Amino acid sequence: MKKGLFITFEGADGSGKTTQLNKVKSFLEQNGYNTIVTREPGALKLGQKIREILLHSEEKVSDKCEMFLFLADRAQHVETLIKPSIEQGKIVLCDRYTDSTIAYQGYARGQDINLLNNLNNIAINGTVPDLTILFDVSTEIAQERIGNEKDRMESTGIEFHKKVRNGYKELQKANPERIKCVNADNDIEKVFEETKKLIQCLLQEKYGE
Amino acid sequence: MKKGLFITFEGADGSGKTTQLNKVKSFLEQNGYNTIVTREPGALKLGQKIREILLHSEEKVSDKCEMFLFLADRAQHVETLIKPSIEQGKIVLCDRYTDSTIAYQGYARGQDINLLNNLNNIAINGTVPDLTILFDVSTEIAQERIGNEKDRMESTGIEFHKKVRNGYKELQKANPERIKCVNADNDIEKVFEETKKLIQCLLQEKYGE
Repeated sequence: MKKGLFITFEGADGSGKTTQLNKVKSFLEQNGYNTIVTREPGALKLGQKIREILLHSEEKVSDKCEMFLFLADRAQHVETLIKPSIEQGKIVLCDRYTDSTIAYQGYARGQDINLLNNLNNIAINGTVPDLTILFDVSTEIAQERIGNEKDRMESTGIEFHKKVRNGYKELQKANPERIKCVNADNDIEKVFEETKKLIQCLLQEKYGE
Repeated sequence: MKKGLFITFEGADGSGKTTQLNKVKSFLEQNGYNTIVTREPGALKLGQKIREILLHSEEKVSDKCEMFLFLADRAQHVETLIKPSIEQGKIVLCDRYTDSTIAYQGYARGQDINLLNNLNNIAINGTVPDLTILFDVSTEIAQERIGNEKDRMESTGIEFHKKVRNGYKELQKANPERIKCVNADNDIEKVFEETKKLIQCLLQEKYGE
């Protein structure tokens, strides 16, 4: 049996990464690949409860508390869904993963990046993506796309978006082999052309297909 | 203004620590001390939601996920309740704290104790108890006291209890200044006499009273 693959989709809110993820899923399935779509936070029932706490808490969630909640969700997610799916030969497409923690909690909220890296490594226990696609979007276009559907995570303003974006770029520089950047300011079809090429390269590299 | 105090109550389920905590609260209030009672996990609204996940989850919560959930609860609890209360000069009585993590997740469930210590330190950020009272109870008496009111945390059997008990004893040996042990096999009043003495010594030492 073929070994599965693990691909993560990263980017600021409004980058269109979820749309692209769904298009990649269709593309892979049309080509006969067994694909599974998931997301962080909140893919599992348990994760949904955690997500609810994070997004709609009545009391202010401290930065440290938020960090540990994300890690709890991630540990459960990796152990019960991502890792078993890869082992079953599936292609796992995940909306946000470890890089979100570093970009949001680290670069944007100013938490200790080394500490976050260490905690991420504890949570994922070696389950590193084969490919991470970073959807890089300008602040103006992201704001336009988000429009009115704002929750706590998305309503933290222009400065926040800039920090997140910059954080992702630093991550890409530090991990050029794993993280590939796509210009997400373009329209959906153009972004998908770029995205599809990255997927095709990965399939070629891993499966020779 | 007097600096507050932070006292934690530790022990296996069935040790009677919660009963003793309430008696200590009455004793302190009768003597004019401004006292606040709290517990882990689940003192805050957010913590209650986390506690619900931990105790009544439909899916199996992985050890690592559980560890991070406890840490999330603790970080929020310290930052929003324990630390401010101590700073306001109150005596904080807390039912379970960092030692529970080490005894349960570390000694009983076999997770890496150094790692847990490091994570605890991140979560509490220097808020170490002035006194920890360890209620040491034999397995037989603990089982008798628990009776039928078992949940997931309490229903893990005799071997589990023994490991927890042993873990607490190791912690006491490693922290003899902070952790004081009380024989919790005795009846409520006798245990309270021992407990009260420890509290009186602390008041004497910290306040000269």
